[in-house]
Amino acid sequence: MIFYYAPQTVSVASHIALEEASASYEARAINFRETEQRSEHYLKINPKGRVPALVTDRGIITETPAILAYIAQTFPQAQLAPLDDPFAFAEIQAFNNYLCATVHVAHAHKVRGGRWVDDDAAIEAMKKKVPQTMAECFALIETEMLRGPWVMGENYSICDCYLFTIARWLEGDGVAIDQYPAVADHARRMRERPAVGQVMPLHEG
Amino acid sequence: MIFYYAPQTVSVASHIALEEASASYEARAINFRETEQRSEHYLKINPKGRVPALVTDRGIITETPAILAYIAQTFPQAQLAPLDDPFAFAEIQAFNNYLCATVHVAHAHKVRGGRWVDDDAAIEAMKKKVPQTMAECFALIETEMLRGPWVMGENYSICDCYLFTIARWLEGDGVAIDQYPAVADHARRMRERPAVGQVMPLHEG
Repeated sequence: MIFYYAPQTVSVASHIALEEASASYEARAINFRETEQRSEHYLKINPKGRVPALVTDRGIITETPAILAYIAQTFPQAQLAPLDDPFAFAEIQAFNNYLCATVHVAHAHKVRGGRWVDDDAAIEAMKKKVPQTMAECFALIETEMLRGPWVMGENYSICDCYLFTIARWLEGDGVAIDQYPAVADHARRMRERPAVGQVMPLHEG
Repeated sequence: MIFYYAPQTVSVASHIALEEASASYEARAINFRETEQRSEHYLKINPKGRVPALVTDRGIITETPAILAYIAQTFPQAQLAPLDDPFAFAEIQAFNNYLCATVHVAHAHKVRGGRWVDDDAAIEAMKKKVPQTMAECFALIETEMLRGPWVMGENYSICDCYLFTIARWLEGDGVAIDQYPAVADHARRMRERPAVGQVMPLHEG
């Protein structure tokens, strides 16, 4: 497999999951500063011009929740999701989907406002609200979603890779992670995992 | 099961899938005009204050892609997803995720701008760009994603329920569906399905 990623982006989540699964893959960085994600070469891999993308021998998979579930299903020995329990699997998907479609989207209004408006003043207005929307999302995660010690309770899962990835953005978004003790503790324990230690130098280097 | 929905919203997709699966469920409408989705009663069902939500005997599932995959997995005889093929399943998830996190989000900037800005001028600026962002999304769906006759090719799937639901929003978003002949044809064929005929009077009545 070839894993296309960009440092510091949401691709951290899939990157960690690949390591947790002991998958055999080659990681290739896409240079966002040179907008390589919009290059002719990369648009053939992912016409959406986004990362991550996972090239398999069957074809290419995009979108973080899809890649995470694929890794869990393809490497069942890593036990990254409850694969034989549709309800528990749905809970995992619901959590990942919330991160993807609500929390990541809230964050994106800080640096990707141009996706949704052309007007500079509106882009500034968007940035202004990001600390509030991110804080609301994480209040919900802290009180309603993160069961502890891992997102789904006793069993580590793909949700943990994803939560760690998005929680890293809080500080840059003007939100103190310590307001959410369970989330902050989760991030500390994630740092202790060998898979996270393996991946993060490529994203924080 | 109890299916909480609101007419005309994204809950159409899960509603159709429940019918396709011949599931036994009770549909309960949430009144958005009276902001029932923010009522104390409903926030106990879904603390995110959104629809749809599916109450099962194990607990509650939220988020459209999670509900759709759950229906496909729980009613395998309906053949709404390739359940034994992780790659094909990932393709389904990637498609649904794009609708959820990119296309639905683009659309939401028309009527839910207050989620991301407080400023009235910025909300107006958001509305102005919706026809462009929705058109870009559907150009990609038309040329890169919709295989035909169904989204994933020969086999009807949960992706078709979802695409039909979101494509219905195009006209209101100022985009002519006929620019996308494959999407328009897909919508016509969806209308002929008994499950769609069953559900739509509750959403268009």
